[in-house]
Amino acid sequence: MNITLAQAQQVVQAALAKAQDQALKMNIAVVDAGANLVAFARMDGAWLGSVDIAMRKARTARFFDMPTGELGKLSQPGESLYGIEHSNGGLISFPGGVLLQSGSGDIIGAIGVSGSSVENDDLVARAGAAALG
Amino acid sequence: MNITLAQAQQVVQAALAKAQDQALKMNIAVVDAGANLVAFARMDGAWLGSVDIAMRKARTARFFDMPTGELGKLSQPGESLYGIEHSNGGLISFPGGVLLQSGSGDIIGAIGVSGSSVENDDLVARAGAAALG
Amino acid sequence: MNITLAQAQQVVQAALAKAQDQALKMNIAVVDAGANLVAFARMDGAWLGSVDIAMRKARTARFFDMPTGELGKLSQPGESLYGIEHSNGGLISFPGGVLLQSGSGDIIGAIGVSGSSVENDDLVARAGAAALG
Amino acid sequence: MNITLAQAQQVVQAALAKAQDQALKMNIAVVDAGANLVAFARMDGAWLGSVDIAMRKARTARFFDMPTGELGKLSQPGESLYGIEHSNGGLISFPGGVLLQSGSGDIIGAIGVSGSSVENDDLVARAGAAALG
Repeated sequence: MNITLAQAQQVVQAALAKAQDQALKMNIAVVDAGANLVAFARMDGAWLGSVDIAMRKARTARFFDMPTGELGKLSQPGESLYGIEHSNGGLISFPGGVLLQSGSGDIIGAIGVSGSSVENDDLVARAGAAALG
Repeated sequence: MNITLAQAQQVVQAALAKAQDQALKMNIAVVDAGANLVAFARMDGAWLGSVDIAMRKARTARFFDMPTGELGKLSQPGESLYGIEHSNGGLISFPGGVLLQSGSGDIIGAIGVSGSSVENDDLVARAGAAALG
Repeated sequence: MNITLAQAQQVVQAALAKAQDQALKMNIAVVDAGANLVAFARMDGAWLGSVDIAMRKARTARFFDMPTGELGKLSQPGESLYGIEHSNGGLISFPGGVLLQSGSGDIIGAIGVSGSSVENDDLVARAGAAALG
Repeated sequence: MNITLAQAQQVVQAALAKAQDQALKMNIAVVDAGANLVAFARMDGAWLGSVDIAMRKARTARFFDMPTGELGKLSQPGESLYGIEHSNGGLISFPGGVLLQSGSGDIIGAIGVSGSSVENDDLVARAGAAALG
């Protein structure tokens, strides 16, 4: 199973709505089950450097089938996956990337959000993910 | 002046409508005046390799303020800009990237479309651009 | 639909058998529907530079859902896709990459072969693809 | 001395068997004495991000002729090789990459495994290495 463009746009719109509601300026990326980009939106005035980070968060979440913040706990100095960010052309392992699942629980893609604190990034990403199922 | 997300989404939707009308499966990217991505959509079943090409076409058009196809005429063997594709991390110099202009004629960004013949890519890109002004 | 490891290994073994039969030394790569690597084999004495080319051929075929040689016809100087190799981190557009399809005709991945003449690369790639369905 | 494809495939199959026995989903890469890829397999459902990591682990082990986990001890903040992961296009310095030796003790390549905890990755890599000699 794989996400459709209609679903990806629904996810982006839900994330945009949450960001607007919180007065945040975000970059929002959605990738499919193969970690390839499906939809993207950058809000007016959002950080330019977050275009790339949002995409990498989405890919990272799908690459390891976990929220990026979970991976980040494991990649700290002294932890088991220290330095994993050097793989795959560069990963992002702080919060803001979460999996997208169908109603039946299949992983169909991932969303990555970047533009504010990691807490806000994660909040908006989860709002986007909640638009499915 | 710079394109807004609302305008970029309007451009993407117009390009999607044209693609659907022509039964084409397209990747559509919109960059702003700074050549940074604002909006993106990949239609269901569209070529995976065109994700990157659509973005490069949009950037290339804005990098040199001309349609990508015009640049391509100048980059053929023996022509003045032969090999320019090696710059900027890789350019795409065949049709499908066109400028986005405000009603007053200011360049506010560019659209790149990839997924079919270059004629179709260009047709869909121009339909997207026509949604402004 | 996506290729399984068992299917990918079957494809690799069929390509290896063909290469051995023709006294060729090949690199053979199989990617899935998302263009991610599933299986790879380099025969003893095969060109080292073909490790990367075999993988790129497989990805290129899936990226545009056509044999790499078909893409290469379109990317010659003066042709419509001239310079497309600059996209996606580097494409390979000469023969040796072909699609893998299920018995029902769905594209489930692609195979890329490199190590000899492009005619031989293509021959071995097609022998691999024929192992499915 | 260098690993043959037949040996590399034997190593991959032994690692696959161990992974299946432990109900793990792994990416398994084998490189030769020159640190060039010889064989690869991604199990169904294994992490996509581990394709790259498995290969990097194998290369890293051979680059410095030690298990990747040993290198990782030296690359922690404050340790002598801090930041070595930035070299060679990106190294992976946590466990899962081990050397492959012939019966006579010559280093003939390395195996890298990624897809689970580093303890499991290392376990499966060692099972693969044990298939030689």
